[in-house]
Amino acid sequence: MKVLGIDPGTRIVGYAVVDQEMGQFHTYTYGAVVTQPHTLLSQRLKAIYETLTKIMVDFQPQAVAIEKIFYGKNLQTAIRTGEGRGVALLAAAMFQLPVYEYDATKIKKSVAGVGSAHKTQVQAMVQAILQLPQVPNPLDASDALAIAICHLQHFQPNISEAGGILI
Amino acid sequence: MKVLGIDPGTRIVGYAVVDQEMGQFHTYTYGAVVTQPHTLLSQRLKAIYETLTKIMVDFQPQAVAIEKIFYGKNLQTAIRTGEGRGVALLAAAMFQLPVYEYDATKIKKSVAGVGSAHKTQVQAMVQAILQLPQVPNPLDASDALAIAICHLQHFQPNISEAGGILI
Repeated sequence: MKVLGIDPGTRIVGYAVVDQEMGQFHTYTYGAVVTQPHTLLSQRLKAIYETLTKIMVDFQPQAVAIEKIFYGKNLQTAIRTGEGRGVALLAAAMFQLPVYEYDATKIKKSVAGVGSAHKTQVQAMVQAILQLPQVPNPLDASDALAIAICHLQHFQPNISEAGGILI
Repeated sequence: MKVLGIDPGTRIVGYAVVDQEMGQFHTYTYGAVVTQPHTLLSQRLKAIYETLTKIMVDFQPQAVAIEKIFYGKNLQTAIRTGEGRGVALLAAAMFQLPVYEYDATKIKKSVAGVGSAHKTQVQAMVQAILQLPQVPNPLDASDALAIAICHLQHFQPNISEAGGILI
């Protein structure tokens, strides 16, 4: 089960393609689409969409895992994050990939053992779990890696809602 | 200036293509993408994206006008609306169309004279202004028509920010 983890943000979208076979993780790619604040919003969304579709073409993931938005954020951030999520979900639909949603607590628990772990703890644990040669940066990319790990730990074929919620 | 007005909602997205020449409005099309609540979110966004891109191909608008989200809505609604906005803005970017954003008060004022007009008042005024043979339904479609009228009333070439905000 090769999964594309996506961490949609207001300006930066993290992504990571990870697989697990015989208990061993394999990291294919990770990174972040960093859009420029002075670029038109529609152009920023296009850059996000095009990067994500290129990753789907290049790495052929079988599923997409995405973080459920934390509802404590303010409305402006919620709308902007929603816009990023929208194009990420569209890309998944275009490639007929199922999308699973996990909340932040579950993701953090999957990699750091506790749901209240800090982003830098998550980053260090992700590096250790995936045996990466360096700390995965930016934080959006390490979050995307954590989302992918969470999905691989919780997903059970044929029990689609065992881990995340299929959206 | 043929404009595509879009009213992005959580489940229904209204659209309308309107032109104005020599002071006369011409309505090319209007309607709404109504997505089903039990369909996967990514599939719903795909339906919205595909309908909007088909309209862009069929009617070749020169600009997109969209309602600025009213920030009084709750977070869940803000995220869902943001997702719809995201794919609408992406479609505009794919067709290299400029996108202008107008707030609800300005839109209502444009068609009904007052910023506090009710949706049904807007609907009746839109019908009168565009001389439509029947009341435009659903409300999402009449809102999209109102957004298009607002843009045509306020947009001045070469003064891109005279009316709406270029996003």
